[in-house]
Amino acid sequence: MLPAMTSTLILLRHGQSTWNAENLFTGWWDADLSELGRSEAAAAGTLMAEAGLTPEVVHTSLQTRAIRTANLALDAMGLLWLPVKRHWRLNERHYGDLTGQNKAEATARFGEDQVKVWRRSYDTPPPPISDDNAHNPNTDSRYAHVPADVLPTAECLADVVERMLPYWFDVIVPDLDGSRTVLVAAHGNSLRALVKHLDGIGDDEISGLDIPTGVPLVYQLDGNARPIESKPVLARALGDPEAIKAAAEAVARQATTGGTK
Amino acid sequence: MLPAMTSTLILLRHGQSTWNAENLFTGWWDADLSELGRSEAAAAGTLMAEAGLTPEVVHTSLQTRAIRTANLALDAMGLLWLPVKRHWRLNERHYGDLTGQNKAEATARFGEDQVKVWRRSYDTPPPPISDDNAHNPNTDSRYAHVPADVLPTAECLADVVERMLPYWFDVIVPDLDGSRTVLVAAHGNSLRALVKHLDGIGDDEISGLDIPTGVPLVYQLDGNARPIESKPVLARALGDPEAIKAAAEAVARQATTGGTK
Repeated sequence: MLPAMTSTLILLRHGQSTWNAENLFTGWWDADLSELGRSEAAAAGTLMAEAGLTPEVVHTSLQTRAIRTANLALDAMGLLWLPVKRHWRLNERHYGDLTGQNKAEATARFGEDQVKVWRRSYDTPPPPISDDNAHNPNTDSRYAHVPADVLPTAECLADVVERMLPYWFDVIVPDLDGSRTVLVAAHGNSLRALVKHLDGIGDDEISGLDIPTGVPLVYQLDGNARPIESKPVLARALGDPEAIKAAAEAVARQATTGGTK
Repeated sequence: MLPAMTSTLILLRHGQSTWNAENLFTGWWDADLSELGRSEAAAAGTLMAEAGLTPEVVHTSLQTRAIRTANLALDAMGLLWLPVKRHWRLNERHYGDLTGQNKAEATARFGEDQVKVWRRSYDTPPPPISDDNAHNPNTDSRYAHVPADVLPTAECLADVVERMLPYWFDVIVPDLDGSRTVLVAAHGNSLRALVKHLDGIGDDEISGLDIPTGVPLVYQLDGNARPIESKPVLARALGDPEAIKAAAEAVARQATTGGTK
């Protein structure tokens, strides 16, 4: 039986974006969902409804693919009216000057080993975004009110952990309020950062963890916003276990061989 | 030339709902947009973008047809990421126990004169919603946190003015902040209530005013959140004047002959 003070956190990584198929480093670039990504989002809403989960408040990044994922999932649940909060601290990792490059180009330019370090190491950020990068996301008006002191120009996962956690502690945890249900629709790396914190995953170990797309992950949390049970991330996923395993393997394969986030 | 402290308020009434065609009293019932209503919403976004208007924050009611209107209009503008606030005080007028009835049924039951009074008088509300009304909207979970003391059971336009204005003064006006641009996506009667306040329209005169659907109405406001210019509501509409006139006439015709809100 769960303790009296139990809140529910649902993490939802957006599905396929239009840049995934082109094998481009996306990061803060505002690539939208593909048709497949839209279907994944609606299906995630159906999974939550079937599991009897009813979010009471929603948090998203400032990026269209996460916002649309939330909208489509909520629409499938008849919950478009929920209060929603958005923040850049939930954004995907900022890929710096790799933004807009495809992996083949980046490998030709910087070498395979270097690109691998930028993609999978915990604490080595890629080169900072240059002003003349054609896909520089930092000039977008949605970031106009972010002070330059905190606006990222390139991030490793350690940087994402550092900038995401204040939003977790200061905004999401108060919304959980000890007993409520909160949905967070975000990105592969902002959710890896949160999962790393919640499950106490080490800096080396996190490199091997990928979050499946379009699959709600459900955490029951205690009064200190800590997981009541310790279990593998995939064991928190809603839906058919075989399908989730296949999806996770596809994400891992993409991360190893060519995919970008 | 506009004064230094000029804010911009954009009012957007949702387009056709699925209940319009069936000639049903809708009120707080959560009828969704029809396909036509969705097209109207996207077109409203295009009109705002073409006029160079860029909202900075969005307010909607708790009803799907207004929320979806905002989402589709913002999507057309590339502004899905805007902060959004929702509140029942922006809802459509509560039609009481007429909710879910069609006009022919209501006329047969109560007589044409009585129905006309309920539909167009300023201060005579229809009968309160009954617990066994199959379309009682008050039990919906989105209203679970509204104290019974303020949750409407039936409203005339005077009631809508009374419950809408606190939200205007306390939440929307601070967001205008003297110089910002705010979009309000709402309903025929909550917007009539707001226009009545802004333009100082009398209790008798307001009965003849209808808000066109899917057409952004633009108010330039001074530092006291009062219109800088006095002009007819339709003169504030974006888009082709002939099309707006035709749309307004269609709404007026519907209001006179059979349409419901």
